[in-house]
Amino acid sequence: MWGSSLSTVVRPAARHQAYLGRRAYIATKPFQGAAAALALRKPIPAQEPEPELPLTEVDGRRVAVQWSSDLQSRFHHIWLRDHCRCSECFHPITKQRMLDTFSIPADIQPRAVDATGEGLVIQWASPHEHTSLYPWSWLKNNSYDPQQFAPKPDWQKPIIWDNRTIRTRTPTVEYYDVMENDDALYDWLAKIKKWGVCFVRGVPADLNSTEALARRISFIRETQYGKMWSFTSDLAHGDTAYTNIALPAHTDNTYFTDPAGLQIFHLLEHTGGTGGETLLVDGLHVAREVRRRYPRSFELLSQVPIPCHAAGDEDTFYRPDPNSGYPVLSVDASTGEVWHVRWNNNDRSVVNAVHPDLMEAWYQAIRDWNRCLTEPSAEYWVKLQPRTVVVIDNQRVMHGRAEFTGRRQLCGAYMGKDDFMSRLRVLWEKGEAGALDVHERRNVWSPGL
Amino acid sequence: MWGSSLSTVVRPAARHQAYLGRRAYIATKPFQGAAAALALRKPIPAQEPEPELPLTEVDGRRVAVQWSSDLQSRFHHIWLRDHCRCSECFHPITKQRMLDTFSIPADIQPRAVDATGEGLVIQWASPHEHTSLYPWSWLKNNSYDPQQFAPKPDWQKPIIWDNRTIRTRTPTVEYYDVMENDDALYDWLAKIKKWGVCFVRGVPADLNSTEALARRISFIRETQYGKMWSFTSDLAHGDTAYTNIALPAHTDNTYFTDPAGLQIFHLLEHTGGTGGETLLVDGLHVAREVRRRYPRSFELLSQVPIPCHAAGDEDTFYRPDPNSGYPVLSVDASTGEVWHVRWNNNDRSVVNAVHPDLMEAWYQAIRDWNRCLTEPSAEYWVKLQPRTVVVIDNQRVMHGRAEFTGRRQLCGAYMGKDDFMSRLRVLWEKGEAGALDVHERRNVWSPGL
Repeated sequence: MWGSSLSTVVRPAARHQAYLGRRAYIATKPFQGAAAALALRKPIPAQEPEPELPLTEVDGRRVAVQWSSDLQSRFHHIWLRDHCRCSECFHPITKQRMLDTFSIPADIQPRAVDATGEGLVIQWASPHEHTSLYPWSWLKNNSYDPQQFAPKPDWQKPIIWDNRTIRTRTPTVEYYDVMENDDALYDWLAKIKKWGVCFVRGVPADLNSTEALARRISFIRETQYGKMWSFTSDLAHGDTAYTNIALPAHTDNTYFTDPAGLQIFHLLEHTGGTGGETLLVDGLHVAREVRRRYPRSFELLSQVPIPCHAAGDEDTFYRPDPNSGYPVLSVDASTGEVWHVRWNNNDRSVVNAVHPDLMEAWYQAIRDWNRCLTEPSAEYWVKLQPRTVVVIDNQRVMHGRAEFTGRRQLCGAYMGKDDFMSRLRVLWEKGEAGALDVHERRNVWSPGL
Repeated sequence: MWGSSLSTVVRPAARHQAYLGRRAYIATKPFQGAAAALALRKPIPAQEPEPELPLTEVDGRRVAVQWSSDLQSRFHHIWLRDHCRCSECFHPITKQRMLDTFSIPADIQPRAVDATGEGLVIQWASPHEHTSLYPWSWLKNNSYDPQQFAPKPDWQKPIIWDNRTIRTRTPTVEYYDVMENDDALYDWLAKIKKWGVCFVRGVPADLNSTEALARRISFIRETQYGKMWSFTSDLAHGDTAYTNIALPAHTDNTYFTDPAGLQIFHLLEHTGGTGGETLLVDGLHVAREVRRRYPRSFELLSQVPIPCHAAGDEDTFYRPDPNSGYPVLSVDASTGEVWHVRWNNNDRSVVNAVHPDLMEAWYQAIRDWNRCLTEPSAEYWVKLQPRTVVVIDNQRVMHGRAEFTGRRQLCGAYMGKDDFMSRLRVLWEKGEAGALDVHERRNVWSPGL
């Protein structure tokens, strides 16, 4: 379609001298098709093009870039103008858009499009003269037609585990290393992200050292329970966590809009009794099992929102926003991946927004979920010891506890997921770029901006 | 359908003496229909029923309660058993489920169903003998077939405003009242919730008094910018907010998974210059305008997620989870109401997950959004003065700023939406229940549990 309209209206554009490269022909008649394949026409070059530059072609709505014989990306003019990252349009330090998107004419057209060694160069005539440059690698990684997924850092690929996997490859780091060394810190955070859980050995068995460890990641997230908490089974707060009864595997804070990202536990002391083993279950493993064995239940678990509450203390009454709550499994529509697990059947409020025709199927879905969740192959039981801290991704890995007797003292903290991820990204940048300063390792073309 | 199956199999159940009321007939043959109307059969009463008790009817899957001649609710047996709130099944202090939902047989049947003055009483035989009581008002407010919406507190009904409304009815409270009096505190929080913005007059123009005011609501939310912040135009952080340039109306923290719920501003000083007026725009007003005038754009604004980032500081790099971001408008599927507005075009990252066929329509949608957002009728401009604090619902009302000259010093804080709402709920409970103690004003039947 592009080819056929171009074939009648293409005209050679005058060569622009500022860039060494190959200029695209610009069709003056707007192309009407949506996502048709572009039959590229070889332009008649003023001089032989440099062979490594992608072929580009233009019509009234888009610029097409031919990466290889079988891969072409198309970018709308409006998108290209809006994504200009020159220092007038995009602040080089704050990494914020300075350009007024709404001053761009909806039907903006390039005056000239050049393939250069630096990247794609576009000259715009309206609303005023402007030149934009887009590096090829940036364009390729941000292609949306077709959508390209830029290569992911290794820590973004989860290791989904069952009992056997984690028993044989238990993710563990050493306190001393993590406290002293940024590479070890990065290794720790990457393990937390990949496994959803990581043990830290050799931590002095006191609250201050545990807090110092947590602060290597970020500030502590304050909640109605305080910041660093210290626990004995005294029902200090109106929550069964503050008793000595068994707790089935769950995530914390289902009653928050944004549950804690990390949960940090340190058993400081357990004397005069037995029990209290910690249970860990990978929510991604359970989700995968349910998806495979009970696809209809998986669907309901990812669609039906569940209301929750924390109302055991007189002066607080927490519910998520919106009050209808969130599904057990949040699935990313673009990738199909589960990115958030919320599960605490005990904090569940009245279920009164499920369609009546689905109510029994929904109970079947949580029954299927619970079946996969409580299979011995999914459960990792571990007896925590003083001097070993466990860090849990509370939006993925569920934790529980066996009943216990005696005096058991723990301390711990919540941390925000965003704060944790920010730290991991920065450490990753530093590791990738070696000793380069921040302006070299993060610029306007960096991934994620 | 219920009626027809019941008509062939109903049998009178033996009267249970423990409850004064009317027993429902129980059909032994499971009813197969889904949501058909129930033709009620008058039971032959052992004695004349008390006239105020609802009629109840039972089949193999559900109990039906006839509230009036034209309103009937149906509750599945599994739902009823799971929602038992006796002190064995539901902890009366912590308000958490103690019952193991997964021990309930999927095909559980009531042994007897009685309408009593206390409420609906059900006797269960399996997995073990148990009796459940459900107050009528609780059942009615939690009906899901058909879905009933319990009456809302007044503060849950937003006042959607334009320039004229807010200029003539500016929501304002007095610092002294709010600090001294819980009724005034409730009034303040209710105003913030209803209007999305409220002014507090008479606040001493210093950071400590501003913090004390904030702490009447909750703890301050810590972020990468600290807790209480104090601002001068020195680009202390890599964000254009820390300059003196104009900022169009936006919400803060679009780069967080859960943006700050409240934004608190106090202009402490502005000397040697002019400008810096504060702009406020009600996102619910803009959303309503777009919905009415540009329905297709409204749809895209509520569906297309927008990635955002905060990457101006060397040691942080924030993106929301999932990285694909959130739409400008979050709409509650069950009510159709907009419950969250996120808008900062300057913090927007590369838009590379929009379907190519929608890209131009999406640009049109944000153009329509911006048109409604910048209409003079939507904009409320106010020149802040020392001693007047403004509190903004950052998930609803957008704020901006005119360019300024001179030395301008502000302080402020972020607060969590959940923390704010918890406080408002508790104050509302106290106000509703007068001087009653917590166990009287919040029990297992309270709304929201």
